[in-house]
Amino acid sequence: MPTVKYELYYWPMIQGRGEFVRLALEEAGASYVDVARLPKGEKGGVGAIMRALGGELGGTSPYAPPILKAGKLVIAQTANILAFLGPRLGLVPSDEASRLAALQHQLTIADLVGEAHDTHHPIAGSLYYDDQKKEARAAAKIFRTERMPKYLGYFESLLEGNGRGRLRHAVGTRLSYVDLSLFQVLEGLAYAFPRAFARVTKKTPRLRALREAVAERPRIRAYLDSPRRIPFNEMGIFRHYPELDG
Amino acid sequence: MPTVKYELYYWPMIQGRGEFVRLALEEAGASYVDVARLPKGEKGGVGAIMRALGGELGGTSPYAPPILKAGKLVIAQTANILAFLGPRLGLVPSDEASRLAALQHQLTIADLVGEAHDTHHPIAGSLYYDDQKKEARAAAKIFRTERMPKYLGYFESLLEGNGRGRLRHAVGTRLSYVDLSLFQVLEGLAYAFPRAFARVTKKTPRLRALREAVAERPRIRAYLDSPRRIPFNEMGIFRHYPELDG
Repeated sequence: MPTVKYELYYWPMIQGRGEFVRLALEEAGASYVDVARLPKGEKGGVGAIMRALGGELGGTSPYAPPILKAGKLVIAQTANILAFLGPRLGLVPSDEASRLAALQHQLTIADLVGEAHDTHHPIAGSLYYDDQKKEARAAAKIFRTERMPKYLGYFESLLEGNGRGRLRHAVGTRLSYVDLSLFQVLEGLAYAFPRAFARVTKKTPRLRALREAVAERPRIRAYLDSPRRIPFNEMGIFRHYPELDG
Repeated sequence: MPTVKYELYYWPMIQGRGEFVRLALEEAGASYVDVARLPKGEKGGVGAIMRALGGELGGTSPYAPPILKAGKLVIAQTANILAFLGPRLGLVPSDEASRLAALQHQLTIADLVGEAHDTHHPIAGSLYYDDQKKEARAAAKIFRTERMPKYLGYFESLLEGNGRGRLRHAVGTRLSYVDLSLFQVLEGLAYAFPRAFARVTKKTPRLRALREAVAERPRIRAYLDSPRRIPFNEMGIFRHYPELDG
């Protein structure tokens, strides 16, 4: 068996924030184990995450998953993990300006992801959706009509201003982890808000082209068609509640 | 006049997210200009931010301030700016594990800051507080009783596990930008939720000691006592609405 280079610790029942890391590892064909998806008997399951949060991996105990173990390094926070993996997986250009731009865009994506999540949990993550449905409806309306158009318009102009031709990238002239993350957020928004998404993305042809291009990359295609890709569901960040789609 | 090394673009009427950058620049005694606080006649004011968002600084147009210009580099997103400045200002250890840990902690602080903000704007940032007061009350209750204790408990144990003696640091054995950011978030929570903060921090002596120690660092003390430090107010992230403090 080849040496496993990376161990990912993330909730085994959702795509969630871990999916941004999974996509980078998959695109690069990296050797990794999605530890919590292993059976309990192989030290997998949610118990693996609890042990990691308890400090079992060494280093500083993280506040929350995703957590990546790479040799002796234990790294948490999605954007931090991707900034670490980018150079190692060939998923970011090598110059300083590009790396700073990549992390900046990833953090803007994280802001969008946070706002998308909060549409169904505006009062508190610890309360049930059913206990904040009315507030969710109000929050989702503003997200659909103000926030999603603003963010997607921003990313569209980012692509528009970078390079030439039909397919443009967020950073540099080749695929980076930012493009993979944009793909994921577009997939998520299309799942959660299909009507609003169709309306907003009529005006974002660059984003539509990027989404299609990423989905057709051979390793991403293989991953999406495999059981390793957890389907979207109503436990994750992007949830399809028709009443929140206007 | 000495060469200005850094230009910061951030809203001139609030501490906000820009304050984490201001504190790092001040502690290091860096040469910087807080551009939007200059008079309009000197190309300051909110107009300076609008021009930066419009792409006037070159590079990729950022989604939102804070924005730092350092030579030809134009960098946005608070944690990204601090990860860039840390090594240049001597505010992070030089080894890779420490730098990853610092960015990780900064991003966890950003999550806490986001949740603190959303207590007064749970439905939407674009609506008035008065239009979401009831929802804010519900969100703030959970923030005070669940989230703030969880985050501060986490950071307390982070300090507790790092080093010896009364004063401990978030990363390594010396002050880093993470300690400055912890100071800022403690100041903000103490301002916004004085009753809840006093209760929760009874159990966090390490955080209390760090807050006091940062406030007494000569350059930070001079900054806090200067007109450069904008007072907390009800336009920023941390707002004191007594009805949200239980």
